[in-house]
This record gives sequence, C-alpha cells and structure tokens, in this order.
Amino acid sequence: MGAVTAPAPWKQLLLNAMESNAHLRHSSYIQLATIACNGRPSNRTVVFSDKIQINTDGRSRKIEELKHCPFAEICWYFTDSWEQFRINGTVDIIDGSNPDPIKLQQRDKSWASSSLKSRLQYLGPQPGLPNLSEEPPKEVSVDPSTGPVGAFCVLVLDPQQVDYLNLKSNQRLTFASTGSPNEEKCWTSERVNP
Amino acid sequence: MGAVTAPAPWKQLLLNAMESNAHLRHSSYIQLATIACNGRPSNRTVVFSDKIQINTDGRSRKIEELKHCPFAEICWYFTDSWEQFRINGTVDIIDGSNPDPIKLQQRDKSWASSSLKSRLQYLGPQPGLPNLSEEPPKEVSVDPSTGPVGAFCVLVLDPQQVDYLNLKSNQRLTFASTGSPNEEKCWTSERVNP
Repeated sequence: MGAVTAPAPWKQLLLNAMESNAHLRHSSYIQLATIACNGRPSNRTVVFSDKIQINTDGRSRKIEELKHCPFAEICWYFTDSWEQFRINGTVDIIDGSNPDPIKLQQRDKSWASSSLKSRLQYLGPQPGLPNLSEEPPKEVSVDPSTGPVGAFCVLVLDPQQVDYLNLKSNQRLTFASTGSPNEEKCWTSERVNP
Repeated sequence: MGAVTAPAPWKQLLLNAMESNAHLRHSSYIQLATIACNGRPSNRTVVFSDKIQINTDGRSRKIEELKHCPFAEICWYFTDSWEQFRINGTVDIIDGSNPDPIKLQQRDKSWASSSLKSRLQYLGPQPGLPNLSEEPPKEVSVDPSTGPVGAFCVLVLDPQQVDYLNLKSNQRLTFASTGSPNEEKCWTSERVNP
C-alpha cells in the first residue's frame, strides 16, 4: 500500500488501456450505473469523453436519478487488452441553469466540440416517452454557430475509488482517494486478490 | 402497446443480437450493476451464461450486495450490431447452502459445464483482500470428477423490465412484465423515443 499525490496513479493504466484499444470504435463506450428513484440499480452504455465527462440529454432518466443520488460507478472493459476499470465517484450535473460560469463555459466547449449529428439528438422528442407516430421524425436542423440547446447536459464524474483488473496478468489493484473534490487528492493504492 | 404471454417478446431480439455478434469473443461480456452496502452503485463486467445465469465467487462483494438488496440491472452492449439491452430484475443467489434441491442441481450442472481453468479460480484466495505475497500463487489442482467447491455460486436474474435500444435504426422498445416469478409472466411492450 502506498500513498501518492497527483497525478492519480491509476490514470496511466487507463491511458495505456485507451491507447492499446484505440483502434476499436467501441473502446470509448462505458457502462454507467446509478441508483434509480425506486431504489433499484440502473445501468446504461454511454460514450466517454475527456476527463470522465459525459454528454447527455438533460431529459433522460439518469439526470433525475443523479439528482436523487449523486453517486455513480463506471465500468469500462477493454475488449482487446482484457482490462477492466471500475471508477466510483460523485457526479456533477452541468445544465444551462448552472450558476457557475466556469462550468457553463465547459458546457459550451463540449457542445462546440460535438458533431452536428450528435447535436441533432438533443432536438428530438423527450427520451423514454411513448413514440406513437407512425411517420418518420420531422427534419430538424441546427445552426453550427449557436450555443448549446436547453436539453444539452454535461456530467462530470469525480473519481474517489478505482478498481483495476487485468485478466491477462491476473492482477488487481484498488485505488482510493482522500480529500474533498476541491482540494488536491491523495491516492492510496493496494494490490488485492483478483 | 401490446400485451403478450410467453415467450417474452424481447428474447428474440436478444437471440438475434447474440447470433450476429457471436464471432466476437467479448460478446458474452455484460455489465452487472448492483447497490453496494454503502448505498452507492456498484458495476462490473461478468460473463453471460445461459438463462441470464452468472457463475461467480461466493466470496466476492456482489454477493454481499445482493443479499442486502436483491435488484440488479444488466447492461449488454453489442459492439457490432449497435444494440443495447438493459435487463432489470431480481437476483437469486444459489450457493451450496441453498435448501432447494432443484437449484442445487442447477449449480452442479453449471460447475460441470465450466472449464477446468475457470474452476481453479474458486480455489484461489478471497477476492478483494490484500495480496501481500511477492511469490507466484501456489499451484492448485481440481479433480475434474468432483462437484462444486464451496466458493462456487450461481446467480440467476429474473427479468422484470427490459429496455432495448438499436442505434442503427434509432429505435427503442421497453418491455415490462406483470406477475410474480413463480407464475407465467405477461409482458407488455411499448415503442418509446430513443
């Protein structure tokens, strides 16, 4: 067991796994588990973007769930290198009503760097509601120069615990942080039985 | 919205997805989310076997979590066909102390059909405990003709809700069952906005 300060010791493992699986389109697909409002677990695939930041629709059920209980665990399995990362932490929801100008800027940046095709999704009907129309969805268009639409929401996961498993070497490491989100984190790591 | 009795209407979708992704070794890897004893979500990759049945180590933390809260959600993403199944339900834990002879038989069968290599895992040290040894693990062997070891445990998920998303056709269907686990289920299905 060793204690270190920044950078987080599991980050290099994750960067290596991302690099060695980068040729796979699905290597940025991760599973995000939250707790539903009925107390049951909820689990879905989301696309990883920088900094454990996830772009999502503010009208989707996960937002409601995270407002109810802000904890989440990401499960990221790399199919080529046989590595799994379980990243547990709290999730910050950044929608258009966020009072923090720095966070709103982060949301603007995420919107600007997402493709026009993915921006169109946020103009569709509310996810999860019954789809009764027989006709194809109306053509919508988005002006490339305008800022994020109301439904565009950014989730930022602040990692507090990481469980790393390598199925090739059969090694497992756990990482835990001490310190609050706003101060520099101190990480401890431990080798545990797989 | 339509109500049907057996077979469950989402099963054919799942069988099709399994078939069209069968050439991928990782197509049987799914993510299982539970609720940890501290109330946080817990999420890990497990290998799917028949009937949403998962072989696992009875000493792993997910057993403790499921005893505390028996609900789970499986997230199964098929990387070639771009289909996601979210299967929510209750989990039955079948270990050697189970009083039901039918379930014990099911556990024996699962043990018999698992590879010798995977059986060896259950003889290793307790998962998640600190690994302090510098030396390689002791050589263990398992008699192919004997029954399951104590740590061998089978989880059976009884599906109650299924959310199906097809990212190629951009269609989403939800399925919900009525009726208790012991009677024949009645499933309703609904097309919802993706």
